[in-house]
Amino acid sequence: MTKTAWLSLDQAKAIKEKIPTPFHIYNESMIRQNARQLYQAFSWNKGFKEYFAVKATPNPQILKILQEEGCGVDCSSLSELIMSDRVGFKGHDIMFSSNATPAEDFRKAFELGAIINFDDISHIPFFLEHVSPELPEEISFRYNPGGIYEVSNGIMDNPGEAKYGMTHDHIMKAARLVREKGVKRLGLHAFLVSNAIGNDYYPELARTLFDLAVEVKKESGLEISFINLSGGIGVNYKPDQEAVDIHKVGEGVQKVYEEVLVPAGMGEVRICTELGRFLLAPAGALISQVLHLKNTYKTYVGLDACAANLMRPAIYGAYHHITVLGKENLKSDHTYDVTGGLCENNDKFAIDRKLPEIDKGDIIYIHDTGAHGFAMGYNYNGKLRSAEVLLQEDGGFRMIRRAETVEDYFRTLEGFWPEA
Amino acid sequence: MTKTAWLSLDQAKAIKEKIPTPFHIYNESMIRQNARQLYQAFSWNKGFKEYFAVKATPNPQILKILQEEGCGVDCSSLSELIMSDRVGFKGHDIMFSSNATPAEDFRKAFELGAIINFDDISHIPFFLEHVSPELPEEISFRYNPGGIYEVSNGIMDNPGEAKYGMTHDHIMKAARLVREKGVKRLGLHAFLVSNAIGNDYYPELARTLFDLAVEVKKESGLEISFINLSGGIGVNYKPDQEAVDIHKVGEGVQKVYEEVLVPAGMGEVRICTELGRFLLAPAGALISQVLHLKNTYKTYVGLDACAANLMRPAIYGAYHHITVLGKENLKSDHTYDVTGGLCENNDKFAIDRKLPEIDKGDIIYIHDTGAHGFAMGYNYNGKLRSAEVLLQEDGGFRMIRRAETVEDYFRTLEGFWPEA
Repeated sequence: MTKTAWLSLDQAKAIKEKIPTPFHIYNESMIRQNARQLYQAFSWNKGFKEYFAVKATPNPQILKILQEEGCGVDCSSLSELIMSDRVGFKGHDIMFSSNATPAEDFRKAFELGAIINFDDISHIPFFLEHVSPELPEEISFRYNPGGIYEVSNGIMDNPGEAKYGMTHDHIMKAARLVREKGVKRLGLHAFLVSNAIGNDYYPELARTLFDLAVEVKKESGLEISFINLSGGIGVNYKPDQEAVDIHKVGEGVQKVYEEVLVPAGMGEVRICTELGRFLLAPAGALISQVLHLKNTYKTYVGLDACAANLMRPAIYGAYHHITVLGKENLKSDHTYDVTGGLCENNDKFAIDRKLPEIDKGDIIYIHDTGAHGFAMGYNYNGKLRSAEVLLQEDGGFRMIRRAETVEDYFRTLEGFWPEA
Repeated sequence: MTKTAWLSLDQAKAIKEKIPTPFHIYNESMIRQNARQLYQAFSWNKGFKEYFAVKATPNPQILKILQEEGCGVDCSSLSELIMSDRVGFKGHDIMFSSNATPAEDFRKAFELGAIINFDDISHIPFFLEHVSPELPEEISFRYNPGGIYEVSNGIMDNPGEAKYGMTHDHIMKAARLVREKGVKRLGLHAFLVSNAIGNDYYPELARTLFDLAVEVKKESGLEISFINLSGGIGVNYKPDQEAVDIHKVGEGVQKVYEEVLVPAGMGEVRICTELGRFLLAPAGALISQVLHLKNTYKTYVGLDACAANLMRPAIYGAYHHITVLGKENLKSDHTYDVTGGLCENNDKFAIDRKLPEIDKGDIIYIHDTGAHGFAMGYNYNGKLRSAEVLLQEDGGFRMIRRAETVEDYFRTLEGFWPEA
């Protein structure tokens, strides 16, 4: 298997004439297609809704495209709530999932009429004290079953060590508590495994949450209005990985839905998802130019992009596939470390990567940067964050965020410069 | 051993009334004292100069203090060069050390008359082609000896896997090359071990570089004007670690200097250092307030600070000592995970940390954040970067950078919002 770039060298060059490298580019057609496939996979569920995780790709134009495809947004902070409001998301099209939440963030979510997903039982009295003496009619709880969570395909994670969510006992206790405070409808949410490859995670998570939903309804008398399967569906970053089949995932969840919820008289429960990575990662790429080739103990390709543009390889050792545009058909018979210019030795997009022979000036396409790419950018070493570009459905392109300037970098220093 | 906060609860509360938490605070007296001790430790060397690594703490007011103490700056990018120029650093008070360097950055360094530290032999023709047909009279080379570099106290690192610097052969070849291009004086630089604890690293590195200097002078005929021991001197982040004794380090380097350079007739060579971490880390602290206490499978303290303010624990698992202000004398008989509010499970300032019993509203002092703290901040999850505060020598305080606002966060989106 291989991975194919969806941008040609000619396209990249045409964009580069207007917008200097490095830049992130997003593929509008692919975003729409991914969203449509997701909606199709869950079309059996009336009221299904994707709440796109803004943190993955916090760009208003991207959010607008997703809104046009029927998606809502999942916000984790005040800034994300304000952005979503400004793009035009209203009320229950906004899910607010946060932890160690400041009162100000809760207030904004409440003011916008967002669905608030409570991370902890202690947040309920905090909300009543600092935000509003009454709870909204519909809220959500985040669940954490503890221990190790293992999907049948072997993928696992460690919710018992995660800071998120409520225990089973707290969910039960909180359900009774909020009912007394005016809540009529409750959603349940859990995020137990990150970037899960294979088609089993969602169906198994669904069973966990559906069983819980039946129990909560029975114990508390609250209507369970939705189950939020959250994020966690992975992306085939590596060329030998198979992409998740979202239709099989949808069928798998449907089967459990019919086994657990329908017999319990809960066939109206809506399914929600928060698939930032699944929808956007493959629909984004980081485009960068080769500035230097260095031969010392290894051969280093020095790019004009660095970890300020894409941090995942530096901090997680994450694999991002690389295509040298225009050299797609050449043999990958050279070995390179592909580096950025930060004074951090982990600022390497790839280590010992087999690639075709690289020349200075080559344009490099780094795959699958559409989620948690630009979003994790920083200004370490005084490096500036890049522009974002949209490859439109009509084949044209437009800038959807300008690159940072030194003036931006200095903005919070205005009035604080010493006299020279 | 223990670590003591240099800010009292009363001081923190007084600042908090004007500048909301979280914020970074820097101790002016300690910065000056650290710089003075460093200069004293190397007072045997005429022309000794510290080039403070701007990347560690890119704040103009901090740079100004260091300038008053006789320091220059070590810059790694265009933005850092512009900041240093604006603070008033001139010519050879600026060292420019960069890798995968863009032509624009080289041009600015050249224009400012900075000392350019070439990372690779290939950067010389690149400079001649893109920046200036002549080299400055004084430049520097970055050396990488390859292999594993082990200090006698057991601390080691792996320069052979590092992207930085030139091989021995390249140094020799480059020295002959630059002599033909008008260079008269050469400095040599190496950075082989990061955050080295103990007093041996600098003396051993000095021997490596002094031996090289003697050889380069002999082979190329170039005058060796300085040896730049760069950074790498560590900080006792953990309470059971002993602080580096900078006077012993200075004596150790002096001994090697007298053994190697003086007999070679090179007793005029200046020593340079780039000790961002050593000078600033202990002189900075992150001040944050406890928003939430959460009891699930563990007990979580939820702060108003997060990895956006201090990333080292999240990405390196780095230890930062924590003091609960006002509870300095209570027993540390509770165990907490101290977390920020990012939707990233690694957003924890401490895991299983023994601390006194914590209450909501407590003010937390996170130690040793003065270097690579604020500097590594990002906006993930739409989180905003904090203010920076200076605790002045006179005991007063003043803001030296304001906190980011949502408007700052949206700045590069102006003109790119969709129509609502």
